[in-house]
Amino acid sequence: MSDLSPTLKLAIDLISRPSVTPEDAGCQDLMIERLKNIGFEIEYMPFGEVKNFYAKRGNTGPNLCFAGHTDVVPTGPEAEWKVPPFSPAIIDGMLFGRGAADMKGSLAAMVTAVEDFVAKHPDHQGQISFLITSDEEGPFVDGTTRVVDTLMARNEKVDWCIVGEPSSTKTLGDIIKNGRRGSFSGDLTVYGKQGHVAYPHLAENPIHLAAPALAEMASAHWDDGNDFFPPTSFQVSNIHSGTGATNVVPGKLNAQFNFRFSSELDFDALKVRVIEILDKHNLRYDIEWTYNGLPFLTRPGELVDAIVDAVQTTVNITPELSTSGGTSDGRFIAKMGTQVVELGPINATIHQINECVDAESLNQLSEVYARILENLFIKK
Amino acid sequence: MSDLSPTLKLAIDLISRPSVTPEDAGCQDLMIERLKNIGFEIEYMPFGEVKNFYAKRGNTGPNLCFAGHTDVVPTGPEAEWKVPPFSPAIIDGMLFGRGAADMKGSLAAMVTAVEDFVAKHPDHQGQISFLITSDEEGPFVDGTTRVVDTLMARNEKVDWCIVGEPSSTKTLGDIIKNGRRGSFSGDLTVYGKQGHVAYPHLAENPIHLAAPALAEMASAHWDDGNDFFPPTSFQVSNIHSGTGATNVVPGKLNAQFNFRFSSELDFDALKVRVIEILDKHNLRYDIEWTYNGLPFLTRPGELVDAIVDAVQTTVNITPELSTSGGTSDGRFIAKMGTQVVELGPINATIHQINECVDAESLNQLSEVYARILENLFIKK
Repeated sequence: MSDLSPTLKLAIDLISRPSVTPEDAGCQDLMIERLKNIGFEIEYMPFGEVKNFYAKRGNTGPNLCFAGHTDVVPTGPEAEWKVPPFSPAIIDGMLFGRGAADMKGSLAAMVTAVEDFVAKHPDHQGQISFLITSDEEGPFVDGTTRVVDTLMARNEKVDWCIVGEPSSTKTLGDIIKNGRRGSFSGDLTVYGKQGHVAYPHLAENPIHLAAPALAEMASAHWDDGNDFFPPTSFQVSNIHSGTGATNVVPGKLNAQFNFRFSSELDFDALKVRVIEILDKHNLRYDIEWTYNGLPFLTRPGELVDAIVDAVQTTVNITPELSTSGGTSDGRFIAKMGTQVVELGPINATIHQINECVDAESLNQLSEVYARILENLFIKK
Repeated sequence: MSDLSPTLKLAIDLISRPSVTPEDAGCQDLMIERLKNIGFEIEYMPFGEVKNFYAKRGNTGPNLCFAGHTDVVPTGPEAEWKVPPFSPAIIDGMLFGRGAADMKGSLAAMVTAVEDFVAKHPDHQGQISFLITSDEEGPFVDGTTRVVDTLMARNEKVDWCIVGEPSSTKTLGDIIKNGRRGSFSGDLTVYGKQGHVAYPHLAENPIHLAAPALAEMASAHWDDGNDFFPPTSFQVSNIHSGTGATNVVPGKLNAQFNFRFSSELDFDALKVRVIEILDKHNLRYDIEWTYNGLPFLTRPGELVDAIVDAVQTTVNITPELSTSGGTSDGRFIAKMGTQVVELGPINATIHQINECVDAESLNQLSEVYARILENLFIKK
C-alpha cells in the first residue's frame, strides 16, 4: 500500500470501517483528525444514534462546504463479493468495497483536496467547511437536516456546497447534478363495503372504485418540466386489497404512490390535483402524505462555473448539468439558500454487490475539488 | 329430549357430530342406518378422504333424489357461541349449533319425511334416492361431482332432485332456488418492469398498466340476465403488487377475479371478452382460469309445481323462484339432465357464530318434503 496516493490510502481506511447506516464506525474521527491537523474547527453534532459533524476553516468571506455521508447501504450476501466488502482491494485498477463509490471515495478526495489546497494557500480567503453525516442512506431524520436546522438557527451562511454523491455515469465529471426533483408520497386507503362476490349489490368493491381513479392518475399530465427538470412523474409503488379468499369482496384497498416533481409545481398544488381526481370519482378515502423534500435548483453561476472549469481543466470533458435521478441530502442544504451541486465518481455499481470505482478517478476527483477551491478562492 | 319430534332428535344427533369439512364424523352412518331400516339399498362411494353415499328405494319409475352434505364450515371462536357449536340446544324455540341451518336440519327432515312417506305408502311408485357428501363446504372435488360422474357412467337416471340448502330468507319456503348462476375465476398476472420510482422511463409500472383494464372490466356490461337470472356480475376479489418499498416500481401485479354468470352466457364467451379487454390495453399477462360450474336452471314444471303446492299446503305461503346467491352442489347434479330445486330452512345465520334455525320449521320442512313425495308419486 506504500505506493498508493494519499486519497486512495484514506479511501481504503474509510471503506475498511463497516459503517452500515446509521453506523459511522470511526470514519468521522478519521476525517476529523486530518481536518484538525490543517486548522479546521470541529463541531460534533450527534442526534439520536446518528453521528454528524460540521468543521470549518476561516471566519470571513464566502463559505464553500463539502458535504457527504460516512454511512453505507448493507452489503447483501458477502459471499457474492469478489473481495470482502469491508476489506477493500484494488483489482485491475478498480477499487472494490462497500462505499467505494457511494461515497467514501469522495470523502477521501475532499479531505486530500483541502489538504493540498491549504498547503499551497495557507492564508486563503473565504471559509471552507465540511458537513458530514452518518444518516444519508437511512431515514435521514437525524442527519443533515438536523445539522442544517442548527446552522440556520444561528444564521451560519453557506454560500456554496459540493455534495460528493456519485454523479458521474461513464467518465468522471460527465454529469454534475445542479438540482434534484422534489419528492413526496401518499398512502391512500379507499373504503368499500365487504361482502360475498355472489351478492355484489350488498357490497361495494374498493378495487372497482379505485381502478378508474388510479388509471386517471397514472395517465395524468402533471406538468411539462422546464429547462432544468424533466416533467413531474407519478408512480404507484404498492397496491393491496383482498382477504385472500376468492369469493369475498374486500372492504378496503391500500395504495402507496410517489411523486417526483419539478420546480414548476409544489407539494400543495399536487395535493390539490390528487384530491380533485379522487373526489371526482366519488371515493371514500383517507390519505397520509409524507413530504420528502422540495425540488432544488442551482442555476448556472459562480459555483457551476467553477466546477465546470475544474472538470474541463483536469479531465478534459465538459460536464452536463442534470437534475434527474433520486434524492440526496443536497435538498436539505439548499434550504439555506446555498448553491448546491453534486459531483462525484461513476455511480454504475452503487448499492450493488461488488461496488467499485476506478482508483485513478479518485485521484482526479481530489484534483478537481482542489481546483474548484482555487477557482473560487484564489483566481478571482 | 323425550318430547322432541323425530326430526329434531335426528337433527340434534347429527349436529352433535363435529363434521368440519371434509370430516363426516359418523353422520352418514346415522342416516344410512335409518334408510336401511326402510328398505333403501346403500352404495358407499368414498373418494379420497371424502365420504359419500348414494341410497335408493325402488327400481322403476321416476327417481326423486334428496341431496345434501354432512360437512359443516369451521365454528370460529367457540367461546363466542351461546352453546358449544357441537352441543346443540334449543333456546326460545331456536335450535343452535354448527350445521343447524346448513344443512343438518334439512338432512334430518329428509330422513323423517321419507320414513313417514314409506310408512304410509310402502308400495309407492317410482324411486326415492339420497345423494349425500361430506365435501360441499370444502374443495368440492371428491364429493357430489364424483358421485354424479359415477352415476352418469352407468346411466343412472335422476329425474328430480331436491337439495336441502337453506334457501329461505324470512320464513320457511318463502324462496326456493330453481337455478344458480355459473361461476368461474381468473388469476391474472400483469407484467411490467421493476425499477426505481426516480427513473420511471427505465421501468414499466404494472399497476399503471393494469388500472385502466381493471376499470373497464369493473364497469363493463356483460349481459342483461333474463327472466330467471340477474345480469352477469364481475368482481375483483384480490389485487396485490409492490415490493413494500415506496421507491420501487414493482415488476408485476396479481389480481384475482370472479364471474357469476347467467344462462345467457357461457365460460368461453366470457373468456373471449376478458381477453379482448386485456389485449386492447396492450398488457403482457398470464391468466389461470378456474371453472367452478355452469349455470343451471329448472324451469317451472312437475318438480317446481310439486314443491310450490307442498309449501302452500303446509305453511300457507307461495314460494318465490330465485337463482340468486352462491353456488351449491345442485350445479353438478343438473349435469345429469335432472330438474334440481333447492329448498331448505332460513339461511340468515349460516356460516356464522350462533348458527341457528327455528326448531318448529324443521318439523314443517319434514312435512313439506313428505308432501312433495305425495305430489309426485301418489296424487298423480
